[in-house]
Amino acid sequence: MGIMDTSVPFRGEAMPLNKRYHTPNMERLAKQGMKFTNAYAQPVCTPTRTSLLTGMNTARTHITNWTSPNKNEPTDAKDEQFGPLNWNINGLSNTPQTENTVYATTFPQLLKNAGYYTIHVGKAHWGSMGTPGSNPYNLGFMVNIAGHSAGHPQSYLSEQRYGNLPGKAQAQAVPDLQEYYNTGTFLTEALTLEAKKAMETPIARKEPFYLNLAHYAVHVPLMADKRFVQRYYDAGLDSAEARYASMIEGMDKSLGDIMDFLKAKGIAENTIIVFMSDNGGLDAHGRGGPVNTHNYPFRSGKGSVYEGGIREPMLVKWPGVTKPQSTNANPVIIDDFFPTILDWAGIRNNKTIQKLDGISLVPTLKNPAVKLTERPLVFHYPNKWTNEKEKDEQLLGINYYSALRYGQWKLIYRMRNQELELYDLSKDISEKNNLAAANPAETKKLAGILGKTLKERGAQMPVASSTSKPVPFPDEVTIR
Amino acid sequence: MGIMDTSVPFRGEAMPLNKRYHTPNMERLAKQGMKFTNAYAQPVCTPTRTSLLTGMNTARTHITNWTSPNKNEPTDAKDEQFGPLNWNINGLSNTPQTENTVYATTFPQLLKNAGYYTIHVGKAHWGSMGTPGSNPYNLGFMVNIAGHSAGHPQSYLSEQRYGNLPGKAQAQAVPDLQEYYNTGTFLTEALTLEAKKAMETPIARKEPFYLNLAHYAVHVPLMADKRFVQRYYDAGLDSAEARYASMIEGMDKSLGDIMDFLKAKGIAENTIIVFMSDNGGLDAHGRGGPVNTHNYPFRSGKGSVYEGGIREPMLVKWPGVTKPQSTNANPVIIDDFFPTILDWAGIRNNKTIQKLDGISLVPTLKNPAVKLTERPLVFHYPNKWTNEKEKDEQLLGINYYSALRYGQWKLIYRMRNQELELYDLSKDISEKNNLAAANPAETKKLAGILGKTLKERGAQMPVASSTSKPVPFPDEVTIR
Repeated sequence: MGIMDTSVPFRGEAMPLNKRYHTPNMERLAKQGMKFTNAYAQPVCTPTRTSLLTGMNTARTHITNWTSPNKNEPTDAKDEQFGPLNWNINGLSNTPQTENTVYATTFPQLLKNAGYYTIHVGKAHWGSMGTPGSNPYNLGFMVNIAGHSAGHPQSYLSEQRYGNLPGKAQAQAVPDLQEYYNTGTFLTEALTLEAKKAMETPIARKEPFYLNLAHYAVHVPLMADKRFVQRYYDAGLDSAEARYASMIEGMDKSLGDIMDFLKAKGIAENTIIVFMSDNGGLDAHGRGGPVNTHNYPFRSGKGSVYEGGIREPMLVKWPGVTKPQSTNANPVIIDDFFPTILDWAGIRNNKTIQKLDGISLVPTLKNPAVKLTERPLVFHYPNKWTNEKEKDEQLLGINYYSALRYGQWKLIYRMRNQELELYDLSKDISEKNNLAAANPAETKKLAGILGKTLKERGAQMPVASSTSKPVPFPDEVTIR
Repeated sequence: MGIMDTSVPFRGEAMPLNKRYHTPNMERLAKQGMKFTNAYAQPVCTPTRTSLLTGMNTARTHITNWTSPNKNEPTDAKDEQFGPLNWNINGLSNTPQTENTVYATTFPQLLKNAGYYTIHVGKAHWGSMGTPGSNPYNLGFMVNIAGHSAGHPQSYLSEQRYGNLPGKAQAQAVPDLQEYYNTGTFLTEALTLEAKKAMETPIARKEPFYLNLAHYAVHVPLMADKRFVQRYYDAGLDSAEARYASMIEGMDKSLGDIMDFLKAKGIAENTIIVFMSDNGGLDAHGRGGPVNTHNYPFRSGKGSVYEGGIREPMLVKWPGVTKPQSTNANPVIIDDFFPTILDWAGIRNNKTIQKLDGISLVPTLKNPAVKLTERPLVFHYPNKWTNEKEKDEQLLGINYYSALRYGQWKLIYRMRNQELELYDLSKDISEKNNLAAANPAETKKLAGILGKTLKERGAQMPVASSTSKPVPFPDEVTIR
């Protein structure tokens, strides 16, 4: 889901896409809490999801692309310029020396250790089959419903048993939902019902709990959520766009149901709600309409280091603390969730295997006027997501890119030709005007920060097949 | 698993089958606890499993045959004499008015309500897909691993992903075990590892817990547990028998691992262990060797109301209460588990939807010399399990039978021809000498008890296709 896939305007005034989508419950949450207008994830899902659980930036996890459900199976598209990168293709692990994984402590484990009742419902996609990370129980969750190694559902439809039709099931068939087979329950709804059911236990026991409700929607396959799709056909959307919009609204309905549930249980005022996505909105790749329009005014979409691929619709309701209907413009990133959540839970001086890259957002949640220390937010994608036309690859910022958000600035590093681009997001939210040539000093400074940060975090760079040499870090290239 | 599928002699002296099987951990449990030599289940699994959870006899649940994973799909073989029976083919439900189910309160739900941490691992098989009973979360469990609507695994092998091979998976593919795919972990071992993992949480939190570890072994498909199979080939067993024996030993290893785990955690002396099976040992139907030998000296096996089909290897270790290496000869039945477990947990005056048929075994566990009140133990199978030859059907006591255990006596009611058989189990454990003709008074008395009990419990009887009349209850037939 992207930042524009909602009727909540994250860009100040309502834009055309805000009018297209209907997310009344996100509006409700925004009214009750704080809207982050500069919140970031990574360009695709697994890197974001593993950074969420570990507090590490992807440059450090070496999980820079989505992981296959199959162990030791790289997901990068074949490339003529670069050879295969030896990244952590099996994802995250709680067990040392699991091949091709990052070994780290997860915050759900720390919450669990502290007495929280930890529930995962929905998409997990933290590790490949045959490794511990495929099982949420190994990552600190006490309850897991429907989470496994796959990143999308084989089907959203109960009539197709969410993929589990005899002789048809693939690795993406969604587990644990037999109760709903052939009941007409869309996957999003089934997950919501299961989440509510799972919360009953800690609520009845007056135990603190953490629910990780990770909807499969709006990932492909784009399938109509029939409860909502007609509205979008009526509005003139094409089939793909209507299906996509219906999936957004189904997900939003889930948010509302959870909010209603918390209220009915009398714990709404004692429960923090965070809304976040794990990559930008899908652009092209099955969407209807022209390319580079689906996150307008943001450039590109999922897979890209341009804003459309990484900027997210983040909302936080911290009852009694976040001011209703407030806005926070601090640049924040998924790496920040780990320390923030532990901070909320009062878990201090915890020991983690890994070094954290995120910072706690508690001070700025308490007061959005508190400016977070200026710091590099790093996006690193030394991988090949899709086979794009050369022209589109560059237009969309997809495959072999790093990027830096630093204050008002955005630096893009294209590894293919080792070019740098510079954008002033305070004036150019659409990243149209590359200022690198006009402002070589700022470009050089930012390239230095990005290069240094990537090296500190042990980032991997792609290796040219012709020379067997890695691409230089961005601080090592000539400013053209 | 049958009563003879173990090296623990449940018949006093060791019999040939006790020498065939190797179950050192059952021996260890028997040494530490109490062996029940007259413990009963129903002839097939779902009836037993649903009686376990509800405390109701199958005559009352109307779950008298195994349930299909598919909703509203009867599993009875077609018959010329009798039409289809309208039994609860979708199993057990926690929700009223679920079609073709019995609506009841489960003891795990009552344990959960009382603060127990309730875990299910392995075979569930309590309800069909598309109904609440397919999901152990609806039956009182907080954690479910690998349990769903199917009664057997598609595969025991990690190399076959326990059935989840792309394009090959059927309804019996085992969920939730992706972590073990292609690791060489036999299903029994994977379930054991998951059970230990799940127990860590309540142990760390010092919460009381209930673990329902329900191995899929030794259900078909009979697949070699490679850790143990060679011993049985070396002993000269044929392939089917060697595979079966290896699955028994793998299951026994699991018991030992759980016992070791409890000891290592320091809670062995504060944890009750119950070992039980859900039907008699499989006889014929894929087993090697001649029919009617697999539970020797007991007659027949799974599917039958003769002793080989219903008598089980039950062991209970109640630390500090059950005398080590003690034996209890009281006839007991799976219906008794519900009140016994609640008694153990100190849960009194609980409200259940259903009327219970079982009684608490606590008094006789405390002192095996305490004789339980003489009472009818009822086995009711107004269904057709398999297409047997007419001769074998009668020899084996399979299809359309009821039976009564009452004191030393066993009454068999064959619905096909409305014949009664009487056996004195104190002298004739193999049910070879039918005393009905020689002892019509006892036969009549027992037929009266069985008929009365069946009627009290609202038992269903098969309906003859030719006359549309139900088979008379056993107290209504002429003693021949």
